[in-house]
Amino acid sequence: MSEFDYDLFVIGGGSGGVRAARIAATHGARVGIAEEFRYGGTCVIRGCVPKKLFVYASKFSEEFEDAEGFGWTVGERHFAWDKLIAAKDQEITRLEGLYRRNLDRTGVESHDSRAVIEGPNTVRLLSTGQTITAKYILVAVGASPNVDTSLPGGEHVITSNEAFNLSELPQKAVVAGGGYIAVEFAGIFNGLGVDTTLIYRGPEILRGFDMDLRVMVREEMEKKGIKLVLNDTFDKIEKRADGGLVGHTKSGTSLEADQIMFAIGRNPHTRELGLEKAGVEMDGIGAIKVSADSKTNVDSIYAVGDVTNRANLTPVAIREGHAFADTVFGNKPWTVDHSLIATAVFSQPELGTVGLTQEQALEKTPNLDIYKSSFRPMKHTLSGRDEKMLMKMIVDADTQKVLGVHVVGPDAGELAQILGITLQMGATKADFDRTIAVHPTAAEELVTMREPTERLRG
Amino acid sequence: MSEFDYDLFVIGGGSGGVRAARIAATHGARVGIAEEFRYGGTCVIRGCVPKKLFVYASKFSEEFEDAEGFGWTVGERHFAWDKLIAAKDQEITRLEGLYRRNLDRTGVESHDSRAVIEGPNTVRLLSTGQTITAKYILVAVGASPNVDTSLPGGEHVITSNEAFNLSELPQKAVVAGGGYIAVEFAGIFNGLGVDTTLIYRGPEILRGFDMDLRVMVREEMEKKGIKLVLNDTFDKIEKRADGGLVGHTKSGTSLEADQIMFAIGRNPHTRELGLEKAGVEMDGIGAIKVSADSKTNVDSIYAVGDVTNRANLTPVAIREGHAFADTVFGNKPWTVDHSLIATAVFSQPELGTVGLTQEQALEKTPNLDIYKSSFRPMKHTLSGRDEKMLMKMIVDADTQKVLGVHVVGPDAGELAQILGITLQMGATKADFDRTIAVHPTAAEELVTMREPTERLRG
Repeated sequence: MSEFDYDLFVIGGGSGGVRAARIAATHGARVGIAEEFRYGGTCVIRGCVPKKLFVYASKFSEEFEDAEGFGWTVGERHFAWDKLIAAKDQEITRLEGLYRRNLDRTGVESHDSRAVIEGPNTVRLLSTGQTITAKYILVAVGASPNVDTSLPGGEHVITSNEAFNLSELPQKAVVAGGGYIAVEFAGIFNGLGVDTTLIYRGPEILRGFDMDLRVMVREEMEKKGIKLVLNDTFDKIEKRADGGLVGHTKSGTSLEADQIMFAIGRNPHTRELGLEKAGVEMDGIGAIKVSADSKTNVDSIYAVGDVTNRANLTPVAIREGHAFADTVFGNKPWTVDHSLIATAVFSQPELGTVGLTQEQALEKTPNLDIYKSSFRPMKHTLSGRDEKMLMKMIVDADTQKVLGVHVVGPDAGELAQILGITLQMGATKADFDRTIAVHPTAAEELVTMREPTERLRG
Repeated sequence: MSEFDYDLFVIGGGSGGVRAARIAATHGARVGIAEEFRYGGTCVIRGCVPKKLFVYASKFSEEFEDAEGFGWTVGERHFAWDKLIAAKDQEITRLEGLYRRNLDRTGVESHDSRAVIEGPNTVRLLSTGQTITAKYILVAVGASPNVDTSLPGGEHVITSNEAFNLSELPQKAVVAGGGYIAVEFAGIFNGLGVDTTLIYRGPEILRGFDMDLRVMVREEMEKKGIKLVLNDTFDKIEKRADGGLVGHTKSGTSLEADQIMFAIGRNPHTRELGLEKAGVEMDGIGAIKVSADSKTNVDSIYAVGDVTNRANLTPVAIREGHAFADTVFGNKPWTVDHSLIATAVFSQPELGTVGLTQEQALEKTPNLDIYKSSFRPMKHTLSGRDEKMLMKMIVDADTQKVLGVHVVGPDAGELAQILGITLQMGATKADFDRTIAVHPTAAEELVTMREPTERLRG
């Protein structure tokens, strides 16, 4: 028992690490945790939480416009970026405090320091040089935004990390990337009045999602005034004497901006963490290789969350951390099922999805019934806004099992959450059909789709 | 075949009647339909649709306030009731046109007239005096707001019918009643800037819903500035010389208002419909008694929707109409399961619910696990609005089956729709628990409720 300083030492105070630490402590383990930046991790400090707060802020501009169709006259409105940043910072500080208190309350010892691994049972705190031993080490250091170090002028661009704390809102912004972070930030900037362009090297944004959703989100973004440049990418960034940036693209055009934000993926945050010293195996991008129970090739070292590059989502990291603690310290072994994870993109309009895309479903079976409905959300019958909502359901034509449900429009993320339960339960189309509609809602569309819009047969 | 003018004559062009007419026609029946007012029925013309449009309109006032917490300064705003009414009327006219065109398209013959029953196979159109025979008659005339004819001064009050078309917005309004219509209109008036009071004879609003929700909605309504008077009711309405109204209550107080709206229930619209002539049985409030397949005691006469007073909801009427047409004309007999109907109240905050209330669940089993979570929606961490969201799940402690899920807060109706599918499928608590959260959403609360807040045992 006293052979080690701790039963468990967690490196990284984000969602996965904190959950693991708390649950392990609840099971009676002596637990230490180290965080080099701020407790709460990417999600709380510079990810989901501030992102969604920014999305809320950016949607008011449309609310003001939409109100007119309902009889309102709204006077001039101004947006003050510094007020949003201050309010966001205050909320994040509050949340970080909660994280710290919850650790304290369960008896976890927190160290405000970067920690590196010295061996299978040893970590060192860089702030003090102190060496600590632990029976188990959990690596939960997350990931960080990629930067293209080979790009000339790359030092002038920002990532999402900086975008959350800009001293002023740009008048003109370019977001480079086509994934959910790029798309979300393009929507935020645009909603806050920034002249916004998104540039992406691929032919369509949001790779990995169902193609109908990808097209729909892009079209709606364009309607909102975001300029989309596809099949192109920056090969040089130039800073002008007046401080403005010019991004030169491969195709030979150039884009001016006050800020250029790169959202070109995130990689595990494993550099100089000492993993090599302990012999922990990683893959080509530095992701720690783990088994289903989050164990690395070193028996005493585990890893959860984005650092393992499985499904890089907060709730997954939390669950992995929880399962690890229950398994190793609670005598309740279980593993996380990564096969059916509902997810949301807080693009504008929002996207919510669970299960297989049409492309993925076709790899499983050639016989699909596709149900698709695109309609104007009720609110916009009066607002006059030209915005559509899309619902798409992919059904195995032989078994009638629902393989995927995809939504673009208001509250798509909320719907995806509950739809996740239905697919988890193995819902069939008949289960949806049997359910009586709730009127007037958007979601009722999902239980009133009578005929397939398309029948795909092998 | 030619013994009758029609195979089916439908009285009432609302949701249930129109669906039945169209489906019967699709099955090859010769169908006529009569509507005395406007096609679309209560839902489209003076119910769900204009109600929800009014709710949207009334919520902007809070949006303007909430925006400030996110860095916005919003200039003076004014609301013009006449613009809302005009926009609403235009939308309703559009929808009515859709209903008419869909009837035309399927070959249903529409008669713009009140129709009354003359016998088991005969109706008479009052506009022309024409007598029409039909093999089957479907009564789908809906319901209408109750008025208290014995109330002195009762002629000065309005119902929801009139509230949808007031020539001007009152400065001060009193809504009498505690059901969903009363609660929804109180929220609408209040949001549009009307000094609003709700008076209800019972001890708590929204009878029939789970008590935690009832209390929560009332408390939130009060926070928004609506005055609630419970355990009291009007016994006299007085009209002053200046046109203002004074409502005198049983308890001896009085309430002044420009408009007093009664929402004290709705009764089947069966008066002077000739049902007695054909020998159709009704209950004490005039609801037509029907079997599970919507047949009355007269073999040739059926009834669907609110006129049967089963579950008075648009989607239920539609389904009853559909089942009737499939059964009688399509050789596809089926009946509507009224046992598990998700529903929403567009109160502010919104309410969504499916399954049993705690009170109802206790009648089935004494062993319940109650999961309850009340929290501030994320948007209000920055808006500063003191508004809570409530999620409550009622689980059979022996079988772990989820018996009811109840939500108060943003998008509760949307959530209820999809939750309806899960309960329809017989979801257990484990089905919810197994589902990975979508973050950050409100709905994730429902899949992350780890310990019961209350364990009720025998």
